[in-house]
Amino acid sequence: MSHGISPLAPKSVPHLPPVAGVRLATAAAGLRYRDRTDVMLALFDAGTAVAGTLTRSKCPSAPVDWCRARLRGGKARALVVNSGNANAFTGKNGRDAAKLTAELAAAAAGCKPGEVFLASTGVIGEPLKASAFDGVMGALVAGAHPDRWLDAARAIMTTDTFPKVATASARLGSASVIINGIAKGAGMIAPDMATMLAFVFTDAPITAAALQTLLNRNVDDTFNAVTVDGDTSTSDTLLAFATGAARARGAPRIASASDPRLKQFRVGLNAVLASLAEQIARDGEGARKLVEIKVEGAVSKRSARRIALSIANSPLVKTAIAGEDANWGRVVMAVGKAGEPADRDRLSIWFGGIRVAHRGERDPAYDEAAVAAAMKKPEILLKVALGLGRGRDRVLTCDLTKDYIAINGDYRS
Amino acid sequence: MSHGISPLAPKSVPHLPPVAGVRLATAAAGLRYRDRTDVMLALFDAGTAVAGTLTRSKCPSAPVDWCRARLRGGKARALVVNSGNANAFTGKNGRDAAKLTAELAAAAAGCKPGEVFLASTGVIGEPLKASAFDGVMGALVAGAHPDRWLDAARAIMTTDTFPKVATASARLGSASVIINGIAKGAGMIAPDMATMLAFVFTDAPITAAALQTLLNRNVDDTFNAVTVDGDTSTSDTLLAFATGAARARGAPRIASASDPRLKQFRVGLNAVLASLAEQIARDGEGARKLVEIKVEGAVSKRSARRIALSIANSPLVKTAIAGEDANWGRVVMAVGKAGEPADRDRLSIWFGGIRVAHRGERDPAYDEAAVAAAMKKPEILLKVALGLGRGRDRVLTCDLTKDYIAINGDYRS
Repeated sequence: MSHGISPLAPKSVPHLPPVAGVRLATAAAGLRYRDRTDVMLALFDAGTAVAGTLTRSKCPSAPVDWCRARLRGGKARALVVNSGNANAFTGKNGRDAAKLTAELAAAAAGCKPGEVFLASTGVIGEPLKASAFDGVMGALVAGAHPDRWLDAARAIMTTDTFPKVATASARLGSASVIINGIAKGAGMIAPDMATMLAFVFTDAPITAAALQTLLNRNVDDTFNAVTVDGDTSTSDTLLAFATGAARARGAPRIASASDPRLKQFRVGLNAVLASLAEQIARDGEGARKLVEIKVEGAVSKRSARRIALSIANSPLVKTAIAGEDANWGRVVMAVGKAGEPADRDRLSIWFGGIRVAHRGERDPAYDEAAVAAAMKKPEILLKVALGLGRGRDRVLTCDLTKDYIAINGDYRS
Repeated sequence: MSHGISPLAPKSVPHLPPVAGVRLATAAAGLRYRDRTDVMLALFDAGTAVAGTLTRSKCPSAPVDWCRARLRGGKARALVVNSGNANAFTGKNGRDAAKLTAELAAAAAGCKPGEVFLASTGVIGEPLKASAFDGVMGALVAGAHPDRWLDAARAIMTTDTFPKVATASARLGSASVIINGIAKGAGMIAPDMATMLAFVFTDAPITAAALQTLLNRNVDDTFNAVTVDGDTSTSDTLLAFATGAARARGAPRIASASDPRLKQFRVGLNAVLASLAEQIARDGEGARKLVEIKVEGAVSKRSARRIALSIANSPLVKTAIAGEDANWGRVVMAVGKAGEPADRDRLSIWFGGIRVAHRGERDPAYDEAAVAAAMKKPEILLKVALGLGRGRDRVLTCDLTKDYIAINGDYRS
């Protein structure tokens, strides 16, 4: 199956500069694919702090279990990510495969297995032959280089149609620090393939605890505000690594997420996470429209989020947008089923900035031709005002097309 | 758009006998369709009790509001149902249209407007021109007849591909009573059209309160256990009418749902509701497979229901079944995201009675050819054992095909 590059792919790919203390390499271990790389290794200098957020699935993959246990240590020397096999629902074999992968990487990199972080994406339920890494680990370590960002993003792709990278720089004390990110994920779960994976790398000297707090604050409005199909992966993983190498250039050591010197860094980190999250929505399986859903006037932000997700995950809303139909009746339905406070007679709805429904009825001034033109655009803004309170939130999603069914429903080849 | 009759339609349609005290009529009021009936009227003899369950949507239609207020009275003399227009999200116009419809029916039938029950299904957000009923109400009352069950079921169809009827009889004291049911609904919301509607009619002498208790007990494992797309309509309505006419034939008057004389009636009522609910799943938009999902070994029935619904509403599970792919990895994903207690390493999964995963790993004895053959059948049983407790439940759904997208996503004609 070839589905080409998403029409919503970013027009240009930013260049990612080196991050002091990080080296990258990729290889083809032959796990599932032919003629492409399927494993990436990142090596970190001693003293690198790590933080992360992992899937809330009750049936997580073996690498997720591995990372959850190792995050407590807060120290990282290596990251190994493979595509082609998710090492999920693989029982004791899976735990052994994760352990072996970490041991092989540790031996080659000269660190402890507990300082190696892991992520896997691909088929669920198939045993991962971690011994395949044995043949490539030495070459990966030997060939690791500060300038392999796009290669790394390519090696972790599954049904992604383009590699996802983002970068920002920030002033920290008297130094400039870099924040680079790479990600993959085309559905919350792609066909047979699991997962949204994202990795962030910085040379800022930040403790693991402060980095964790920053991630927690940022993930809710970036990665957690994106949905393709409402299906949560067994393997969703976001890890952030801070080498601290910028300290040599005069950056201060930061031990608190509230440190005022982090102001620019916080903005940069949020921008990187938000860009990667948006790129995932832009590469949603079969997507032809990027849809931003804004809900305001809810009783709380939490309530606004739930209503926005109810709209974003409604198959009827998503198919209507695929059909370029400003079907606000289905939006009313999705608001109504969210289980959150809503008053039909105060509800207003906009498509592409044009109000189509007002206070519980079709807007009398609604110009069907203008709305039809707005619905033809590749990016659709859908706004709902509840008129109850001051809670507001926003989520990103994409439309639901026949290609989603083709990608996920056609017979296995 | 013509999509033919669902391949899952029942092979034969049962004959529905008259229910003493009920007369039916249909007409073409020209609300939206050409060359078909779009309104049905049921007339009930004096003394008819009514009970019902209505959508939990926070944005219900005007007829739902009307019925909710009138159910308190517990008495019914007429039911008016139209297709083509849902009278939902129509503001004050909608309330006025519902009132006018009830007044027109009451005047023609010689009863009070508060004894008239209403349901509407069709486009959301378009004003319902209730004055259109003025021209047909007299003829409807004059032509009402005990033998119009299939006509009635046809008049309330929207995107349904076949009329949905069911019947049962039960011994009540020394008399035999009839329980007839009709329903419509092809998605929880069909394209532009709202709604699951179901109406049950019996000549048993049962008080409104007892009938309400019986409905509440039965609806959870019948209509509430069916999902097509997880989208809850603004208009879902189930009403039950008991004329009491069987009292003249010696049936005792029943004032408690726990009355032991109701034993057969309870079985019959459950059979009628279960049959109608299954027919709705069989007519799911674009459906090619009827899917029964059984979850056992959960910590409670409620937990089993939530896990079953998480599986049933997962686009990735539904597209896999459309592709005849026993993709248990996606079932693991759906169990994991349900948010209910689950232990990956105790989980077992069966497709078509064949165990494909056992205790958190692929079943070593799993015969791929046998499973492939099972997946080709039009009815798929998917069983999940959690191994935690004794909670079990079952839901019905259908697969997700390109036809669902075509029905709901193609440009409005």
